[in-house]
Amino acid sequence: MLGLEEGATLRAGIVDGPLGPARIERFLGPNELSLDCRELVERGEIPERPRVDLLIALPRPKVMKRLLAPLACLGVGRVVLTNAARVERYYFDSHVLAPGFVRERLLEGLGQARDTRLPEVSVHRSFRRLVEDELDSLANGARRLLADLAGDGAVPVRDALAHHEGARVLLAIGPEGGWDDFERALLAERGFRRVTLGSRVLRSDIACLVAVALAHEALDRRTSPT
Amino acid sequence: MLGLEEGATLRAGIVDGPLGPARIERFLGPNELSLDCRELVERGEIPERPRVDLLIALPRPKVMKRLLAPLACLGVGRVVLTNAARVERYYFDSHVLAPGFVRERLLEGLGQARDTRLPEVSVHRSFRRLVEDELDSLANGARRLLADLAGDGAVPVRDALAHHEGARVLLAIGPEGGWDDFERALLAERGFRRVTLGSRVLRSDIACLVAVALAHEALDRRTSPT
Repeated sequence: MLGLEEGATLRAGIVDGPLGPARIERFLGPNELSLDCRELVERGEIPERPRVDLLIALPRPKVMKRLLAPLACLGVGRVVLTNAARVERYYFDSHVLAPGFVRERLLEGLGQARDTRLPEVSVHRSFRRLVEDELDSLANGARRLLADLAGDGAVPVRDALAHHEGARVLLAIGPEGGWDDFERALLAERGFRRVTLGSRVLRSDIACLVAVALAHEALDRRTSPT
Repeated sequence: MLGLEEGATLRAGIVDGPLGPARIERFLGPNELSLDCRELVERGEIPERPRVDLLIALPRPKVMKRLLAPLACLGVGRVVLTNAARVERYYFDSHVLAPGFVRERLLEGLGQARDTRLPEVSVHRSFRRLVEDELDSLANGARRLLADLAGDGAVPVRDALAHHEGARVLLAIGPEGGWDDFERALLAERGFRRVTLGSRVLRSDIACLVAVALAHEALDRRTSPT
């Protein structure tokens, strides 16, 4: 098992808790061991919650399935999944939205990134109710950005975050085919500013990853000394 | 078929050639049609070749398989796949490296991005011969960057490209577990400068996507008026 022996120390983490060293006490079975986590609990550090949140028009189950681990790996605080005109109703019935399945995929991505902060995932069947009534409490104080094609006033992610005093960002990623006019208007009215992810048309799951990466870079830069 | 009728115009592209309108002449079968491409050939524009190239330590077949379409979608000019100390030999025998399979996955990604420039993919079983003898002709004049963990002198991708006069970038992404000391030294000696993709440890396929996205943003910014 990992080539380790009893008594060895490995890096461990407690979900939403500290990350640090733990000592292997005993192997209990082929996939089970007992760890001494006292040092981890007493001295391990709890990672900062990632400062980037996503509002995503619910993708097809196949796309949703492959998106979860990479998002947790890249670092998101919250994933808000919403209905939209161009989202098919049956997407909401998929097993990939079952909490157990979601958690397992997120843990896979977190482990790779050596993070313990499990992204919070919520599913919303009414876009309008979400944006009008629920978003203020879900993403309070976050700078709101809407990923869009280049041109026509959309600015780079970095520019949109250059003067953002707050800590958090909420990025909206539309469905394949885009948001419809009503959705665009409501998002604009609720403070979402249009940003571009570059000059190419991206598949929606790739757009999610690129948006998160660019937002992290922009936030890191803003707070770093260089 | 796409809800289109004979006589309708659609957006088409010729691999490594122009992109533009084509008219449906006739449906020949459930998955076959005849297109009038005269306007496309005469007036369509050939997209610019993406300016970002990748040097990747060959990933596991499962990872390689899922990486191809997203890379073509994000835009890479060339993908150089290499052996490394931490690459397993059997990775090279996988069907996912068969030219037909690679081409099919790349075309899938290109179509989504509305691009026609097929990335050139080459496979190299000797890291040393590749870096010492072949890389100069494969990536002539490209700024060479090595994706690495944050800290210890690694700079953001954008900073590494801020004063790059040339058009192209070659980004090296290591295997799971990283390059070994010999490989690092040889890459450094051959002009690869260390860059960071952020503060988190990324799965190697996600690192590839993030690196390409950050490099594109840095290059776009450098040449854009804002």
